[in-house]
Amino acid sequence: MERIFGARSVAVVGVSDRPNNLGRYILQNLIDWKYEGRIYCVNPKGGEVLGHKLYPSVSDLPETVDLAVLIIPAPVVPEVVEECGRKGITRVAIPAGGFEEFGKEGVSHRDRLVEAARRHGIRFVGPNCLTVINSRTGLCLPFVPVPPDLPRGGVSIVAQSGGIGLDFLARLRDQNTGFAKFASMGNKTDLDEVDFLHYLGEDPDTQVICMYLEDVERGRDFLRVARDIRKPILVYKANVEPLALQSAKSHTAALANDDAVLDGALRQAGVIRVRRLAQLAGYAKVFSLPPLRGNRVALVSPTGGILVLAGDQCARRGFVFPPLPPSLVEDIQKHLRAGVINISNPVDLGDVHDAESRKYIVDRLLEQDFIDGVIMLLVSQLATREVTTGSIAGLRRNIIPDLAELVRKHGKPIVFSLLATSEVRIKARQKVDFPIFDDAEEAVDAAAVLRDFSLRFPDYGIAAKKPQ
Amino acid sequence: MERIFGARSVAVVGVSDRPNNLGRYILQNLIDWKYEGRIYCVNPKGGEVLGHKLYPSVSDLPETVDLAVLIIPAPVVPEVVEECGRKGITRVAIPAGGFEEFGKEGVSHRDRLVEAARRHGIRFVGPNCLTVINSRTGLCLPFVPVPPDLPRGGVSIVAQSGGIGLDFLARLRDQNTGFAKFASMGNKTDLDEVDFLHYLGEDPDTQVICMYLEDVERGRDFLRVARDIRKPILVYKANVEPLALQSAKSHTAALANDDAVLDGALRQAGVIRVRRLAQLAGYAKVFSLPPLRGNRVALVSPTGGILVLAGDQCARRGFVFPPLPPSLVEDIQKHLRAGVINISNPVDLGDVHDAESRKYIVDRLLEQDFIDGVIMLLVSQLATREVTTGSIAGLRRNIIPDLAELVRKHGKPIVFSLLATSEVRIKARQKVDFPIFDDAEEAVDAAAVLRDFSLRFPDYGIAAKKPQ
Repeated sequence: MERIFGARSVAVVGVSDRPNNLGRYILQNLIDWKYEGRIYCVNPKGGEVLGHKLYPSVSDLPETVDLAVLIIPAPVVPEVVEECGRKGITRVAIPAGGFEEFGKEGVSHRDRLVEAARRHGIRFVGPNCLTVINSRTGLCLPFVPVPPDLPRGGVSIVAQSGGIGLDFLARLRDQNTGFAKFASMGNKTDLDEVDFLHYLGEDPDTQVICMYLEDVERGRDFLRVARDIRKPILVYKANVEPLALQSAKSHTAALANDDAVLDGALRQAGVIRVRRLAQLAGYAKVFSLPPLRGNRVALVSPTGGILVLAGDQCARRGFVFPPLPPSLVEDIQKHLRAGVINISNPVDLGDVHDAESRKYIVDRLLEQDFIDGVIMLLVSQLATREVTTGSIAGLRRNIIPDLAELVRKHGKPIVFSLLATSEVRIKARQKVDFPIFDDAEEAVDAAAVLRDFSLRFPDYGIAAKKPQ
Repeated sequence: MERIFGARSVAVVGVSDRPNNLGRYILQNLIDWKYEGRIYCVNPKGGEVLGHKLYPSVSDLPETVDLAVLIIPAPVVPEVVEECGRKGITRVAIPAGGFEEFGKEGVSHRDRLVEAARRHGIRFVGPNCLTVINSRTGLCLPFVPVPPDLPRGGVSIVAQSGGIGLDFLARLRDQNTGFAKFASMGNKTDLDEVDFLHYLGEDPDTQVICMYLEDVERGRDFLRVARDIRKPILVYKANVEPLALQSAKSHTAALANDDAVLDGALRQAGVIRVRRLAQLAGYAKVFSLPPLRGNRVALVSPTGGILVLAGDQCARRGFVFPPLPPSLVEDIQKHLRAGVINISNPVDLGDVHDAESRKYIVDRLLEQDFIDGVIMLLVSQLATREVTTGSIAGLRRNIIPDLAELVRKHGKPIVFSLLATSEVRIKARQKVDFPIFDDAEEAVDAAAVLRDFSLRFPDYGIAAKKPQ
C-alpha cells in the first residue's frame, strides 16, 4: 500500500488532448498539486499533452513506475494490466468503470482483470472509483479537478463512493481542517476497506481515520484490524435499512446489516459510529484538541437558553458539572472586581462582557484538577457582521485565538461552538486553527466522542496537526 | 395581543444619549426598521435623542400610546406601570431585568408590578427579555441592534430565551427564509407561550410557528390551543433532562419534563417536536413547499453513494420508492435520445449530465400520479466555485431555479439538498427563493415532517410566501 500512496513515479494510461478527456484531468491534478514524483503519460497515438510526452505503450515507458493509473475502457484494462505485469509494475489504480456494475459483459472483464493481476502479483485500487490522493506528496489521481488549496492535516478518508469522498473533503475544508490521505475504493475488487484501514492505522501522517462504507464483506477482519488501531476511527455505515437500494451481498463474514448488531460490533472494536454524513467531518476535527480525560466539564455561555439546552445534551451524554468551590468564586470575583457576579457551574457569562474577563474565567476553570475540559458556547449577535475587524460574538475583541492559547497552556480541551450565520462562522474559521462547532448540541456530542476515545486510550495525546 | 404586535404608537421609556443606553438601541431599531407607527421617548431629564424629543414622563405624552416599552431599573417599573395605567395605556413590554431572577428583592418588584398591572387591566410581555418584533410594521423592540435587512416571510418565532430567538433569526436569514413575528418572553410573568401560540395561530401573517420553550406551566392549555391550530407548530423543548440547570417548577398542569410523556403529548396535539436547534429553522423552511400528500417519492441524485445513504434515511422515515413503469422509462430514453440510460427509482442521474435533461426527468416524475414528491440531492464538485456564473453542482446551468419552476407547475414538493461547502450554499441560496437543505439526511427528515403535516391537514396548501 505504501508503494501506492508513496509512489515516486506514476504513469497515467489514457491521456489525450480531447476535451473532457478524463486522463488529462488526472494529469492536470498531478501538475496542480505539484506531485513530487515523476509523471509519465501513455497514449498509443503519441504526441504531447500539457507539456508531457505521450508514450505509445506501458512497455515503452523509460522506467518501471511505482504506480500505473488506467483511465481506459474496461475491455482493454485486463490486457494493459498484463502489460504492466510484464513491465514489472506491481501497483495499479483503476478509475475506469464498466465492470461488474455493467452486467454480464462487465463481469467477464473483471474476471480477466483479476486473472492478469494475480498472474503478476499486482495489487490494485478500484475499478470504478476516484482512486487515491496523498496530500503530502501531491499524488492526486481523481479524474475530476480537485483544488490544490485544500488544507493539509491529519485526517484521512476512505470512501466507497467517490462523490461522498469529495463531499467529505469539501466539508473538511469548510471546517478549516486538513486531510492527509484520500481513498475512493469503488468496486474494491482487490484492495478493500480492511487493507486501507490497516495501512492508515500505521501511516504516520494519519491521525484520524474516517470511513464511508456501504458493505463490508470481510467483517471479522475489519473488526480485528480496527481493534488494534490506536487512532480514532469514525465510520458512517450506509446501506443498513431493509429498503436500501442494493443490500450488501450475503456472506458469512460480512459485517451485519442489522443495525443493532452492527452497532455492538463496531463499538466493541472501538470504532466511533456516526449517523450523519455531516458528523464525519465534524467529529474528525474534535481530535485536534487535547484529550478529554473524564466527564467533569465546565459549561460556559453568556446565553442562558444555550446553557439550558446544552445542559440537556450534556446530561444525555453523561457529563457532570462539578460545583465551583467558594474560594475559586471569590478569587474570580476579586480579580474581575465584580462583587455581584455569582459564578457557578454551568457558568453564565451573561454579566461578563469583555473578552479579557471571559478568558480569565476559562483560564481559572481549566486550571482546576476537578475540571476535565470546558464546553464553551457563544452566540454571535445578529448585527455583528464585522468579524473581519476582529469582533465575534458581540465582543470587542475576538476571543477565539485566546481559547486556542488556553488549550495549549493547560493541555485540556475547550470544545467551542459559535452559533452564528454561516458567513460569520466561515470568517471565524479562516482566522484560527481551532475547531469551531456549528451547534451547541454538536459541540457536546463531539466532546463525548473525544472523551470516549480519550478514556479508551489513556496515552492518547497526539493532536492532529495542521501544517501551514 | 394584536394591540401589542399591531401597535400604531409606541413609547420607549428610558431613552438617553448615554453610550450603550439600551433604550436608545430600541429607538434605533424602530428607526432602522422604518416603524410605521408613531414613536415617543420618555426620560425625566428631557432633551432629544436621534431627533426624538424626550418627554419627562408617561403622563406628559401627547397621546395614549398603544404600547409602552419600559427599559428602566426594576424597582421603578411598578410605578411606571401604574402611571401607564392612569394614562389609559393597557399594553406594556418590559425588557428590563432584575425581578424574581435576582432573588428576594426582585420578587417584591415583581409582585408590585403584577398588582399595578392587574389594577389597570394591563397585559404585558416580559420582564427580562427582548420583547417583540413585527416584521411587517417595523415594530422592532429588542435592545440589541437587529439588522433591518432580515428577510420578511411567514415564519414566526416564540422563544423563552432572547439569545436563542436571535440565533433563530440568524439561521433563518442563513436559509434565506423570511420571518413574520418574533417574541422573546423572558420571565413570562403575564403573557406566556399559550397566549403567543394562540395569537400566532390566528395571525394571518404567520404560516409556520416555531417555539423554543424551557418550561410550560399551563401544559394542558398549551396542548389544547395547539390542537386547534391548522399551521405547522415546531417546538424545541429544552430543560428535559434530570441534570438540567433549573428544572421547571413542579405544577400539576405543567407540561411533563419526562421526555417520553412529553413526546406523546406533543404528538397528540399535532406539534412537531425538533431535537436540535438547527432543525427549527431547517424544518420551518420546508413548509414553503407544496404539501407532500403521501409516502411515495422519487429519490434522485447523480451520486450513487448519496442514493444509498438517503435510501437508508427514507426507509427510516417510512418513504417508499414506486417502480417506474416501462412506458415512462422508454419515454424518457426516447426524449433524451439515450438508449443506454436505464432509469429506475431511486433515480441515478450519474449518466445524465446536462441540466435540461435532468429537469425533463424530474418534470416527468412529478407528473406521475403515483409519485407524491421528489427528494433530489446534488453534490457540488469541490472545484466548482463559480456559482456566481450560474454553475452549481457541476452543471453548466444552475438547475435550482428550474426546480422551483417545476414545484409551482405540479404543486408537488421537490425537497432539495445541495451537498457543498457553505460558501457555495450561501451563494446558491441568495439566488433562489426555494429551500435548500445542507444534508441528504436533513432533506429526508424535513420531507417526513412535511408529509406528516400534509397528511394531518389534507386541505393544507398555503405556502409560506416570502415577499420582496
